[in-house]
Amino acid sequence: MDIVTLSHGSGGINSAHFIQNIFMPFFQDMMPFANEDSGIFRANDNNEKYVTSTDSYTINPIFFEGGDIGKLCVCGSANDVAMMGGKPTYLNIAFIIEEGFKIQELKKIIESIACECKKLDLQILAADTKVLPTFNKDLEKKNIFINTTCIGMLEKVNISAASIQHEDCIILSGKIGNHGARIFLEQNNIALESAIKSDCASLYPMLSKLFASEIPLHALRDATRGGLASVLNEWAISSKVCIEVNEEYINIDEEVRGVCEILGLEAYDLANEGVCVLALPQEYATQAITILQEHELGKYAKIIGKAIQKDIINNLKLAHSSMQDSETLEKMYLQRVVLQTKYGSKRFLEYPQGELLPRIC
Amino acid sequence: MDIVTLSHGSGGINSAHFIQNIFMPFFQDMMPFANEDSGIFRANDNNEKYVTSTDSYTINPIFFEGGDIGKLCVCGSANDVAMMGGKPTYLNIAFIIEEGFKIQELKKIIESIACECKKLDLQILAADTKVLPTFNKDLEKKNIFINTTCIGMLEKVNISAASIQHEDCIILSGKIGNHGARIFLEQNNIALESAIKSDCASLYPMLSKLFASEIPLHALRDATRGGLASVLNEWAISSKVCIEVNEEYINIDEEVRGVCEILGLEAYDLANEGVCVLALPQEYATQAITILQEHELGKYAKIIGKAIQKDIINNLKLAHSSMQDSETLEKMYLQRVVLQTKYGSKRFLEYPQGELLPRIC
Repeated sequence: MDIVTLSHGSGGINSAHFIQNIFMPFFQDMMPFANEDSGIFRANDNNEKYVTSTDSYTINPIFFEGGDIGKLCVCGSANDVAMMGGKPTYLNIAFIIEEGFKIQELKKIIESIACECKKLDLQILAADTKVLPTFNKDLEKKNIFINTTCIGMLEKVNISAASIQHEDCIILSGKIGNHGARIFLEQNNIALESAIKSDCASLYPMLSKLFASEIPLHALRDATRGGLASVLNEWAISSKVCIEVNEEYINIDEEVRGVCEILGLEAYDLANEGVCVLALPQEYATQAITILQEHELGKYAKIIGKAIQKDIINNLKLAHSSMQDSETLEKMYLQRVVLQTKYGSKRFLEYPQGELLPRIC
Repeated sequence: MDIVTLSHGSGGINSAHFIQNIFMPFFQDMMPFANEDSGIFRANDNNEKYVTSTDSYTINPIFFEGGDIGKLCVCGSANDVAMMGGKPTYLNIAFIIEEGFKIQELKKIIESIACECKKLDLQILAADTKVLPTFNKDLEKKNIFINTTCIGMLEKVNISAASIQHEDCIILSGKIGNHGARIFLEQNNIALESAIKSDCASLYPMLSKLFASEIPLHALRDATRGGLASVLNEWAISSKVCIEVNEEYINIDEEVRGVCEILGLEAYDLANEGVCVLALPQEYATQAITILQEHELGKYAKIIGKAIQKDIINNLKLAHSSMQDSETLEKMYLQRVVLQTKYGSKRFLEYPQGELLPRIC
């Protein structure tokens, strides 16, 4: 590995290895939340805790049906904070703009940012603007990159990718694949006839009641780059469980399904920007779903599966192979995601490989 | 103004207008610290306060004598937090890397980051990595942009560009111009024979004792983009004072002075990355300088001038012009910076104009 490649930034398995091999040897001692999208810090003398996240938006196209880079950079970082149980409260924002970028487009982006900040009552604490000498060969096309850091007050504690327990329910908050499918269509100039819209939205308003409730949340993650497949695989690995989900319960719009079939995309790998996955104890699942469904964003919330840690073979109702002893089989399924198909068969839902399509960042 | 130009991001007067005209109409209601490099937030139930800053580093060259983008991105954001009276404590970091960037160079950068974080005992709370499809026409040259957000505990309160009082002393912590001069030499491939080194350093270790002391700090700012001239002009405008500084007391290395003379640069406009300016009441000036000089970075700390708000004409010992009444003269000097030259004459030290040279970001 001599140079950085596109797949190192795609959010798939190559990204994970890249981070692990290149960054972590230097950062591991100083990075307590390396496996999460956000980190937590606390006030010295009391129990108040804060959570913070950072993300750079290098998306193409900059404007798309359902949002733009401005809306996305606020929702994205606010969602990362919400995924750790935080209420998004403050935002830092930094612009890197290519020389020649149209002021009119910049104003639209800034307006989107302001609009989304108002919805969430976010205060902007610090901002920065840099202009890059033009570099695009295509003179008509100019880039803008935005970095946002969100800071929030922690409302729900102990949420972690590593906290999932045996028999925890896996809940999906909405329909998957819309953002990724929309971006794919726009990138390939085949978007005109499609009604598919990005789901870009801030998730905190849907989650705030859940945070205020007694319901323990073991894990919570928005299914962005790498989609549902990435989240579930990361969880299975971090929590050392097998996660079984049922295809039948995973909501996918017909149009998205159609695009995936025609173009050979896997809906489970497609990015979402307004959908999250929850892992929580079975006995709270119904109550959690009721709360989620009260909000527009959560009206399709559903249990899609469960986590299994013990007695995996019986739990998954797998046939014992005469070639393998049960211990070997158990190991084979641990830290993996199993998808039960509509036809009753089972297959592994793999961690997205290589360069993810579409490139959303 | 139809498109974004390089001067919009240069840190000079055009940048200030660009921010004011394009961003602030949308952000002003949600941006309480618009005139500072950092923003403050507080814990709900107690007096603890935090300060945070954000900055994107888009520098060229990436490696330079005295530092690299890794060291700079930690020092820069940590310094912004320190400039508001905060102790840099946490860091968020986001990488945007161009496809094809050499892994070996990336590792050097990451090592610099880790090294500087260790010195300051900074924890990295959140990180992000994006890879951009290659865009440089020059195949040998690949870019990396790094955004850092620093969060710190507030140790010294009420520091603000708008708090400078009549007769406050202006103190400069060190020699100016080294970073800007070094970058200029490297950008123009004339660096080989020069001993000039960037002054890139974290300022908090020099300032911590000052924060812990009783000394009130009215204003504090590192003299980065736009140099000393920018800081003093921003202060004069924000605090509605005239700032008079004496050329004789402003420390500039002979080599830097030489480079400026030969190349027609203004040392006061050159960027620094390890120098700060302080404004504080006269009666504390000696004590403050003693504290600063205890630290290696502050050994050249010196009073360079003072702020004047009242009776400006007498204070500056200006000759009354028969053409203008004293009120008009007063107005002319208010919100301006006056430089007393070595030859006894006085001139305005202007806010840096147009595109600043060298482009350091």
